[in-house]
Amino acid sequence: MPSHSISQAVIKRLPRYMRFLSELKEEGIDRISSRELSERMQVTASQIRQDLNNFGGFGQQGYGYNVPNLIEEIGKILGLDTPHDLIVIGAGNLGRALAGYQNFESRGLFIRALFDAAPEKTVKQVRGLPVYGMDALPAYLAEHRVDIAVLTIPKDHVRPVAQKLYDQGIRGFWNFAHVDLALPSDAAVENVHLSESLMQLTYYMKHEKE
Amino acid sequence: MPSHSISQAVIKRLPRYMRFLSELKEEGIDRISSRELSERMQVTASQIRQDLNNFGGFGQQGYGYNVPNLIEEIGKILGLDTPHDLIVIGAGNLGRALAGYQNFESRGLFIRALFDAAPEKTVKQVRGLPVYGMDALPAYLAEHRVDIAVLTIPKDHVRPVAQKLYDQGIRGFWNFAHVDLALPSDAAVENVHLSESLMQLTYYMKHEKE
Repeated sequence: MPSHSISQAVIKRLPRYMRFLSELKEEGIDRISSRELSERMQVTASQIRQDLNNFGGFGQQGYGYNVPNLIEEIGKILGLDTPHDLIVIGAGNLGRALAGYQNFESRGLFIRALFDAAPEKTVKQVRGLPVYGMDALPAYLAEHRVDIAVLTIPKDHVRPVAQKLYDQGIRGFWNFAHVDLALPSDAAVENVHLSESLMQLTYYMKHEKE
Repeated sequence: MPSHSISQAVIKRLPRYMRFLSELKEEGIDRISSRELSERMQVTASQIRQDLNNFGGFGQQGYGYNVPNLIEEIGKILGLDTPHDLIVIGAGNLGRALAGYQNFESRGLFIRALFDAAPEKTVKQVRGLPVYGMDALPAYLAEHRVDIAVLTIPKDHVRPVAQKLYDQGIRGFWNFAHVDLALPSDAAVENVHLSESLMQLTYYMKHEKE
């Protein structure tokens, strides 16, 4: 497998390729040159060739890229060739927003249920998905395979909850709490620290003006 | 100003410094060595020194860093020394979640109002903030200074809306719609493409196992 020699920067760009290629597919476009793709994505054609060469390169000279084929290959690299089952911890506005994204399903990412510390204060269902109390979690995990926990609970509570989920076998964590998790190294954690993203924006706004 | 020679990687790390330093301040810690800070942040002390040296370095030999001072200096770099007024476009679950984050205000980031295409279908207020119809936007912008628009509307609608906001003087865009905006270069845009973050996670889950 080529994974260990691929830079983080390339890996970060792969979902972006997925997005543009999926848009092409939706438009009925099955084949695209690296030049056309580069115009759409506003990156250089040589960057595209270089990025995709990391995976053996799926383009053919004089033909360009086969769109459905490239989607499938990048999907394999991104681990989307097997479906994933997700649960959302925290059924507040953010948890409900994430549970409402239907386009995750087209990537094989299925949110199955939400859990909340105060389920009586929130809705009973989100897009047909059940909202359970946190006390129902152990029994649920005993009966259902869950690959990814989506954490949208306050930062003061998230670490013990994440540890418990890890202990019950979950190895994927999509963390929206504004704190770093301290989990064993076989857990994969992706953090979305929204206020850090907003500070990037204020940085660029300030320095744009100079 | 040092901004133009600073790498994007450093800029991306600055909000993280802000987070850890603010936690220290909350704990009443006013002074920290680069070694202690490095243990907390799980980065090397030399990385910390290197990063902060980009801005002249705020540490003193044998003393370490003065926490409130460093927060203020990094805040200046991030543009947080002047307050920002924000509006949220789209009052669905995500827009409401963002409007509900009270910790933005401690950084001088004030969400002032939400706007929605179908305000009759949503709530009238979020945390005391008004929710207006999109038709009220031009009059609102004529009367209020707005620095940043937070875009949480569907991707098919976001581009014309962003253009209109730009035409009315907004130059900061925090975009959650899953599409790249095409705005003039004096607009600052920060994208949060959530499904791309989720695909990073599935990548690491797959390759973790190898």
